Formats: sequence, structure tokens, C-alpha cells
Amino acid sequence: MVTKNQIKHITALQQKKYRQSEGLFIAEGQKVINELLHSQFKLQHLYFTDAIFPTITQDQKTQISDDQLKKISALTTQNNCLAVFAMQQEQPINTTGLVVALDNLRDPGNMGTIIRLCDWFGITQLLCSHGTVDLYNPKVVQATMGSLTRVQVNYVDLPKFLEHQDIPVFGTFMDGENIYTQQLPQNAIIVLGNEANGISAEIENVVTQKLAIPRFGDLQATESLNVASATAIILSEFSRNKN
Amino acid sequence: MVTKNQIKHITALQQKKYRQSEGLFIAEGQKVINELLHSQFKLQHLYFTDAIFPTITQDQKTQISDDQLKKISALTTQNNCLAVFAMQQEQPINTTGLVVALDNLRDPGNMGTIIRLCDWFGITQLLCSHGTVDLYNPKVVQATMGSLTRVQVNYVDLPKFLEHQDIPVFGTFMDGENIYTQQLPQNAIIVLGNEANGISAEIENVVTQKLAIPRFGDLQATESLNVASATAIILSEFSRNKN
Repeated sequence: MVTKNQIKHITALQQKKYRQSEGLFIAEGQKVINELLHSQFKLQHLYFTDAIFPTITQDQKTQISDDQLKKISALTTQNNCLAVFAMQQEQPINTTGLVVALDNLRDPGNMGTIIRLCDWFGITQLLCSHGTVDLYNPKVVQATMGSLTRVQVNYVDLPKFLEHQDIPVFGTFMDGENIYTQQLPQNAIIVLGNEANGISAEIENVVTQKLAIPRFGDLQATESLNVASATAIILSEFSRNKN
Repeated sequence: MVTKNQIKHITALQQKKYRQSEGLFIAEGQKVINELLHSQFKLQHLYFTDAIFPTITQDQKTQISDDQLKKISALTTQNNCLAVFAMQQEQPINTTGLVVALDNLRDPGNMGTIIRLCDWFGITQLLCSHGTVDLYNPKVVQATMGSLTRVQVNYVDLPKFLEHQDIPVFGTFMDGENIYTQQLPQNAIIVLGNEANGISAEIENVVTQKLAIPRFGDLQATESLNVASATAIILSEFSRNKN
């Protein structure tokens, strides 16, 4: 049973403002919740219909009906469990190895997919401009499939931060160098731009090397890749000679 | 002004059954609609709030209010226009060059992103098993960003079709060969599997070469890539030596 007040409290966590004042966020689905349970994140409470979590004590979980789960869910595709976790304090930034930076990325699905890609490619540091979608947005959490437990995310004044780095800063542009023919270093910051506008002029100023992903379709073909697709190709290129 | 009957007719097109009986589908947003208008697809009718389409004659377009557009839209993020187009007859399959095949892909966003990737990499033939999400699903159409006008899609009995091909059939598997070290041909079929289950046993039987995308994260890292991310990496690998 979930009370009216609890429903109000949980659904309010769909808003960034409320998440920040409460220090809490929601995660849905067994896969994501299990990954969070086995990480440094602290569970506040678990609501479930028929999912089994034997390690969670009775006072930290509540069995509810499908209808009640629907009321507290932020997703359109229904799961069988939803958990409230405590947000983590940001850790100090670590720019060893490859770092990914997001310049005003807006789509939660793209952000989540990029975190999952970072995890796959062993990239543990993600930097986000203040205009980037919130890590704890329920759709971001969902799209990470749990990878947010292994990738450290910091929100920073991105142009200012990049300006003071002495490692190379890469970005993709229409007029950049063919990524397939470049020597790519193992210590670098890779900037990805906004879905509609690409990399902002402010960030372009601090990019030290411009890359381009060549297009193989005809002249009529699509003029852009989805930013998560571009990230997959870029991270693959930076990593493919490592093994 | 859009009548109650029109609203009923348009929203019914969100269902595959109704799309097939009517031979019609819906597209939303200026970018996608413009691409369709400049292709072989035939416009049936356009509904718009403030988007300007000077080339469309008055009898083929109707100005409506934001509220009315919301009623006919299949998307949660609202656009300023929605159009009904006639579906196309399937064309004969052409297996020249690279071909992508989808084995029961279920997510409309993934399907649309993969069509956009095919377009980018100059792949004009996409094969889909009968269990794959419908090309004319409004969320697929949206995610293609118009690339569906340049990529030919055929729904086939995929295991049977692949069994009778004499060109190599590639698929990605955990125990496949490292994709970064293989010689990849320019005439091949690349199979991508279902989001939850990967490539089915039936299709695995007709795959002639198993590939793997190496993971660079630690042992705790995510065990899978999103299928659209995997597609981006695979198509990039097949194409990167072309230019």
C-alpha cells in the first residue's frame, strides 16, 4: 500500500528542483535497481509488485498493486518495481585517460546511452555543462541501465573548465579532420554538442582539435548523426587500437 | 479546424492494423515532413499550427490550433505540424553492397536510429524479420529524421531468407572475433538482434561469421551495448577503410 502523500512525494521527484531539495531520485526496473543496490548509492525505499528482492529488509520495501505502481512511475513502459535512492555528492574531477564532456545535451535518452557507452569503453569521468539534462532525471537513470554507478558525473562551467586544461580537447565538426585517419591520444577530453545546435561557439573556441565522422551516403543523405550514435563511433575510434 | 471524425481517423493510424487497412501513416515535425514531401511518398493531408509549407495547395492542408494538434499527435513532445502520407509498396530486395538485417528489434527509437545510421553509411537496404517493429510506427518515423525516404525496408521470413544467400552473414556475439582486427567485406549482410535476447538461435544457425565488439571497461562494467550504439560501431568498422 502506498499512501496519497507518498505518491505525491515520489512523483514530485520527477522534477529536478524537488530532487535537489530532497537529495533523492527514483530508479525503475529490476536491472537498474539491482545495479544501484550493489553500488555506493543508498536505498531509501523500494516499491514492488512481484519483483523479488530477498536482501532488502521489510522496513525498506513495500508491496503495491500494478495500479499503484503506475501512479508513481515516471515511465510509459511499466516495470514491476520502483526505488527511491539518495543522490551522491559530486566527487573531485579526475581527468586521467579519456574524459567525455557534454555541451548542453538535452535529451535524457541520449544522456543515458552516452553514460552506458562511457561504461563500455572504460571511461569513468563525464563532465556536463550546466545546461545539460540532469543525471537524476528518471529517463536518464533508466537509459543508463545501471551504468551511472560506474561513471562519475560532474556539472561544471564547461567553457571555463576546458580553457584551463592542458590536455587536448576534441570536438566533431563538419569541417574537422577525418577521424578514421587521425592518431588519437589516450588522454583527452571529447566534447559532444547539443542535439539541435551541435557544439556552441564558446566551446568551439577551446577545442584544440576538430574531428569529422565521414559520411558514406550520397549527397542527398542525412546531414547529421544522432549524438549518441556519433559518441559510439568516436569512442570506438579512440579505443580500437588499445587492445 | 479538424473534426471529431478526422481526429478518430488520424489517431487510429497509431495502430499498425489500421495503418495497413488504410495504407496511410503519420509523420510529425517540419524536418521529417519536408523530407517526405521531397521524396516518392505521397501526401494525403497536412495539419499545421504555424509551420509554413508554401508549396502545399490549400485543399491539402488545414490550419489547426495547438490543442487540436495535441489531440492528433502520437508524440509526447509537441511539434507544429502533422501530416498523413500514403505508405509505399515494398520494392524488390537488393543485396548489393552492405545490407542490415533486424532480428525482432522491438524499440521504435532504436529502429529509427538504425535507419538514420544506414542512411549515413550509404546502406540502402534494410531487412526486417516479421517480429520487428513496424516501419510506419509514428515513433520510428520520427526517429528516422527523414532517412526512411532513402533506405528501402523489406519485411521477410528472415531465417529462411538468410539461409538462401551466398554472401557472408555477420552477427555480433559475446564469443565472436574482435571486430577491430577482422578484414570486413564490402558485400555482406549484418544482422542485429533483439534488445533483450540478442540474435535468436534460428538466425545464429545461418550466421557465417561471428563478431564481437570488445569491451574496455573493468569486469564490473556493463555487459551490453544498446543495439543502436552497437550498430553505429559496426557500420563504422565496415566503412572506415572505404575512403
